[in-house]
Amino acid sequence: MGNETLTTRVNPDEITAIPVPVGISARHIHLSQEHVDILFGPGYELKKYKDLSQPGQYACEETLTVVGPKGVIEKVRVLGPLRKQSQVELSISDCFKLGIRAPLRDSGDLAGSASVTLVGPVGSITLKEGAIIAARHIHMHTSDAEKYGLEDGDRIYVRAKGPRGIIFGDVLVRVSDKFKLEMHVDTDEGNAVGLRNGDTVFAYKIHGHISELVK
Amino acid sequence: MGNETLTTRVNPDEITAIPVPVGISARHIHLSQEHVDILFGPGYELKKYKDLSQPGQYACEETLTVVGPKGVIEKVRVLGPLRKQSQVELSISDCFKLGIRAPLRDSGDLAGSASVTLVGPVGSITLKEGAIIAARHIHMHTSDAEKYGLEDGDRIYVRAKGPRGIIFGDVLVRVSDKFKLEMHVDTDEGNAVGLRNGDTVFAYKIHGHISELVK
Repeated sequence: MGNETLTTRVNPDEITAIPVPVGISARHIHLSQEHVDILFGPGYELKKYKDLSQPGQYACEETLTVVGPKGVIEKVRVLGPLRKQSQVELSISDCFKLGIRAPLRDSGDLAGSASVTLVGPVGSITLKEGAIIAARHIHMHTSDAEKYGLEDGDRIYVRAKGPRGIIFGDVLVRVSDKFKLEMHVDTDEGNAVGLRNGDTVFAYKIHGHISELVK
Repeated sequence: MGNETLTTRVNPDEITAIPVPVGISARHIHLSQEHVDILFGPGYELKKYKDLSQPGQYACEETLTVVGPKGVIEKVRVLGPLRKQSQVELSISDCFKLGIRAPLRDSGDLAGSASVTLVGPVGSITLKEGAIIAARHIHMHTSDAEKYGLEDGDRIYVRAKGPRGIIFGDVLVRVSDKFKLEMHVDTDEGNAVGLRNGDTVFAYKIHGHISELVK
């Protein structure tokens, strides 16, 4: 916040607002085959219910009950495909209800994350770790990243307009040729702003002035 | 967003960050005496449970069940003192659960707001209007407003720091000599950021550049 930055003159045209569609992630569960076997029976195969917006990702017909020391949440959707390690993505509201303290994490970063119990039709399992609050992020195809000069791992600002307008800081950019341009927020974040699936938000690649952001 | 603003030079010292404690408002109900009579019985007097942070405001021992076309929320706290018109303040999450579409409103602005049913121990009433999503706001004592050069009705930016850092736009400033400095957000907004009661956020009186905000 030195004078240097504050007195840099910026051409408004250099501040690129990248329109990004929003996907609101409700609580959900990714499972390993080992845990599918325990919860649904040995060799059980998850059934695809419908494709999700990210290529190759899908919602399954199966749901589970998530149990914590202070509460229970039923009918939590399982997503496919299988993962090496089971992961339960919850909102802060969910964590209050369950009575757990899950950390804010990027997907897949599970070391030391919260314990939670999953109950299925055949069996149950208490995960020692695996429950997280997923950090908001933008899925970006390699071609989008090149177009906008962004790299995997960048953290940028995103503005959601409207009567409850907001600027999200520290939005992780994830780049892959398997991704489709989309920002994922959780239900708390979506409801704080009043966002619906498919709404457009605006990502800013900021170097220098960002007064454009908060006008 | 013209060039004029973007090329204004600002002295960082002129950008005042006003530290403001946060209060997270869970869903709650304000009642008129007429509705107290219906819900709890004629002449019933609400019992104070505990004082709230704003002078003269208090939580009552009484709770009500709020009913919408798609769901029910039990044990919703009644706040005192009585008001001329009953008002039900809900989060967007609550509205999804109830199946109603309450508008985003400043407190007291109830014309055309949503209908909802309240059920008490003695009777029930369906409000034709009165259910709102309360717009976030800052209660500010007259002396604070004078100190910071703000006026009742101003809308400003507020930054919440932390790993889920955010900038709230359009935060209403409410000034009264009966108020104590405090920002009120609802549970969706609080949980989106991971705020707890008493956390400090930073309000910005912005005229011109606000690059300070998003660094």
